[in-house]
Amino acid sequence: MKLRILVTGGTFDKEYDELGGRLFFRDTHLSEMLERGRSRLEVAVETIFMVDSLEMDAEHRARVLEACRRSFEDRLVVTHGTDTMVETAAALAEGLADVDKTVVLTGAMVPYAFGSSDGLFNLGSALSFVQLLPKGVYVAMNGRCFAWDNVRKNRELGVFEAIR
Amino acid sequence: MKLRILVTGGTFDKEYDELGGRLFFRDTHLSEMLERGRSRLEVAVETIFMVDSLEMDAEHRARVLEACRRSFEDRLVVTHGTDTMVETAAALAEGLADVDKTVVLTGAMVPYAFGSSDGLFNLGSALSFVQLLPKGVYVAMNGRCFAWDNVRKNRELGVFEAIR
Amino acid sequence: MKLRILVTGGTFDKEYDELGGRLFFRDTHLSEMLERGRSRLEVAVETIFMVDSLEMDAEHRARVLEACRRSFEDRLVVTHGTDTMVETAAALAEGLADVDKTVVLTGAMVPYAFGSSDGLFNLGSALSFVQLLPKGVYVAMNGRCFAWDNVRKNRELGVFEAIR
Amino acid sequence: MKLRILVTGGTFDKEYDELGGRLFFRDTHLSEMLERGRSRLEVAVETIFMVDSLEMDAEHRARVLEACRRSFEDRLVVTHGTDTMVETAAALAEGLADVDKTVVLTGAMVPYAFGSSDGLFNLGSALSFVQLLPKGVYVAMNGRCFAWDNVRKNRELGVFEAIR
Repeated sequence: MKLRILVTGGTFDKEYDELGGRLFFRDTHLSEMLERGRSRLEVAVETIFMVDSLEMDAEHRARVLEACRRSFEDRLVVTHGTDTMVETAAALAEGLADVDKTVVLTGAMVPYAFGSSDGLFNLGSALSFVQLLPKGVYVAMNGRCFAWDNVRKNRELGVFEAIR
Repeated sequence: MKLRILVTGGTFDKEYDELGGRLFFRDTHLSEMLERGRSRLEVAVETIFMVDSLEMDAEHRARVLEACRRSFEDRLVVTHGTDTMVETAAALAEGLADVDKTVVLTGAMVPYAFGSSDGLFNLGSALSFVQLLPKGVYVAMNGRCFAWDNVRKNRELGVFEAIR
Repeated sequence: MKLRILVTGGTFDKEYDELGGRLFFRDTHLSEMLERGRSRLEVAVETIFMVDSLEMDAEHRARVLEACRRSFEDRLVVTHGTDTMVETAAALAEGLADVDKTVVLTGAMVPYAFGSSDGLFNLGSALSFVQLLPKGVYVAMNGRCFAWDNVRKNRELGVFEAIR
Repeated sequence: MKLRILVTGGTFDKEYDELGGRLFFRDTHLSEMLERGRSRLEVAVETIFMVDSLEMDAEHRARVLEACRRSFEDRLVVTHGTDTMVETAAALAEGLADVDKTVVLTGAMVPYAFGSSDGLFNLGSALSFVQLLPKGVYVAMNGRCFAWDNVRKNRELGVFEAIR
């Protein structure tokens, strides 16, 4: 089974700019993370863009959708900032209704480059869920998996939870 | 859905003894790992024992089996040394044939306490697989999931692979 | 020999706020760092305030000076943001001209809480220099030690260098 | 001022062999450590050998002494296992009595490759002490610096202490 990871940025891939003292994007850490996890999955990694998800608009989401549609693989993980992950999941669900693909969005609350990141846990989780779930769009965070239309980010707690 | 993690030791939980200069077991790191992963799963963590899996014998495996059988939860993750993980999986499969439980064994090639460990990735993976897989015993390593009777550890490469 | 560490914030002690996605101050990491370094020095740690050094003004510097003056210890390390470390060093040199104290300022380019920080190296360095240097005010960064009036931060390279 | 670091192995440079599940030596981490510390010192790194200091004999010590003697630099740091660091310090003190060199031995209680190592702290410390100390042989551990003939390793506590 071949998988594809679409990278869109988010906290996952943020780094510390030691000259400016702020967070920024450089390259994705996905390859390094897969190596650390000793992953033996057949997986293609494709960076669509690297943005903070608060800056994502309809045009960005159209590009993610397009990448999902044209992918030869039927099972995809999308790394994404947590703030608008649910919006992108909804956009993908609508745009992929007619195709037989499983898409799992995941992200991180703390950048992978920082020692205490949840990123590696979430990546292991998303890559596992995506192998088993049927066609559809899902969010994998906090060790759990949610259907795209039954999840919200609880901004006070910094966790994802079911709506109903 | 409530899960249970059974801890048996293995590389996962090894630490560096700075007085003796060798690796040893103290407490499990599971709670710390679940916290780092921002896990929101309902999960009970139970340490059965902490041993190197090369030192596990039939009596050890009987205790793991007993813990699986008496667990109220139907879905269990067992952390285990990689060297004899497949043997324990076989013992559990035989002993759990008559009950409706899903058991996923996982471990690590590098101790969690070392920066470069695959442990967090594997834990995220095992906790995800266990939520979806039907009754049975499985091994989750390298981002993949294997049925207990179709997996072996390739000792030269340090990875798990399907037999057929 | 008893030492005192005065904490003023700076990159050294910044953390990642996972709810807000920005860097902030909580508690100092000094005790944790001394423990990691297996320090056996007699050292008192005193947090004066925790600010970004770009926000430090004359009043802040007066408080650092006051803490140096009233300290029972003759040898002090001041942790400080790198951007205005040299200005504070100059203020301390002027205000401590009449007392017999050795003060070494140090900081970090990357927060200690991030895996790749230079903080532990700099702390080991500053605590060593302060034990040997004669009365005066110094900056310890990049493994080197500079007199307060012969150092500047090269903002393009993110390093400290001698002026002449 | 140009410095030289002589690498002899020790806990400092041990790594985890994930195939064999044991600790071993590969390459020294000194360059990586100097980079992490943003060191701007002029420093040559020379690996003499990589051994556990319990395996060091008179012949090994003769090679370290020879490297100290032939070094163009007058100030040297020797990374060394902690178990016999004091013996090597004594051998160097005897063999260097007639030359004007400052040698500081240092090491680590926990390998640098493990997240919780004291190595970076000790390296920052040793590189600082060596720049200021007069001719002689010293041990820098636990943030402190000891003359070669006034130090012992307290094996119960895992720390270095003065004899008198």
